[in-house]
Amino acid sequence: MLEKLLAFIQEMERLKTVTRQNQTLDGRFENAAEHSWQLGMMALVLQGHFPERVSLSRVLSMLLLHDVGEIGAGDTSVFDELGKRTSYDRELKSVKQSLAYLPHDLREHFLALWQEFEQGQTPEARFARCLDALAPLLNHFWIAKANDNPTGLTASQVLAKKAFIAQESPELWALAQDIIEQSVAKGLYLRDETTNSAR
Amino acid sequence: MLEKLLAFIQEMERLKTVTRQNQTLDGRFENAAEHSWQLGMMALVLQGHFPERVSLSRVLSMLLLHDVGEIGAGDTSVFDELGKRTSYDRELKSVKQSLAYLPHDLREHFLALWQEFEQGQTPEARFARCLDALAPLLNHFWIAKANDNPTGLTASQVLAKKAFIAQESPELWALAQDIIEQSVAKGLYLRDETTNSAR
Repeated sequence: MLEKLLAFIQEMERLKTVTRQNQTLDGRFENAAEHSWQLGMMALVLQGHFPERVSLSRVLSMLLLHDVGEIGAGDTSVFDELGKRTSYDRELKSVKQSLAYLPHDLREHFLALWQEFEQGQTPEARFARCLDALAPLLNHFWIAKANDNPTGLTASQVLAKKAFIAQESPELWALAQDIIEQSVAKGLYLRDETTNSAR
Repeated sequence: MLEKLLAFIQEMERLKTVTRQNQTLDGRFENAAEHSWQLGMMALVLQGHFPERVSLSRVLSMLLLHDVGEIGAGDTSVFDELGKRTSYDRELKSVKQSLAYLPHDLREHFLALWQEFEQGQTPEARFARCLDALAPLLNHFWIAKANDNPTGLTASQVLAKKAFIAQESPELWALAQDIIEQSVAKGLYLRDETTNSAR
């Protein structure tokens, strides 16, 4: 029994090698494991700013597990439209491969938590998804060098990807908008025509 | 209010740059943030193997926070006897500096969780400390190259540091002993005279 659990913990070691697009203060690409830690920390700090009551243990469990499918599928940027079309299927396949190390009950429990996050229907999953959308905005604003925007990303493209936060928490949405505005000022996103004409 | 919380989240970004002695599968030194994620994952997997009932949300909160003091103090190896004499004071100072960004209630709550882990009296803290002692054993066994033992660490030195697990969970202690034995076979720790004569 413990042997199976150990094999799963060993498999999880691989999440530390899955890199994301954001960088760290020491100039590496951030990995999915430390990103998951950061979301857990953000949940502890921001839970009072989500308008619904949530089970903290379920939010944290979901956040620890939410990127496990990237072990096999890699990280897919939210702006990679083509990759996003297939990422759920690729990640589900990877999750199932990783969870196969576990005994039945734990496997079903973890799969349910992963799917709860993906489906984003429960308060816990909706809060967790807000954090997952906020963290890379913050990281990028804090760490990217001024005017680092090689793909010419516009503010409205970023706002569109994060707009779902508005329905979940007006306060967190105001925060997201503020960070995007400050990031535009730092040259990380282009100011759109529409944004210009509204000024 | 949210501004203070953001300043704290930004401060926490630094934990991703605190390196530990163990390595990752992609050949980096592991950092304290991804290590904290791994302990959370281990808590999810191993909670059924700790003999007492624990609050999962408190265990996970403690694990997410337990290394925050290393932002200012750095990581101190369990085998660094001189460093360990001062590490509590150095880490407490660092924790207080980091928590100063937070509003009063959250600051007190996080400080209490950090101290609960350090003191290791509650079931949650004792379980969390078992995981924190197991993880580097596992990482080192899985990732270190055969015969990598530059400081000539002996099995009895390692067993002595992990022996407290015996009082907490016979099952996790058996696991620790087994990993140490396999690590000796891999050349990561020297087999002691006493161990030899007992064979």
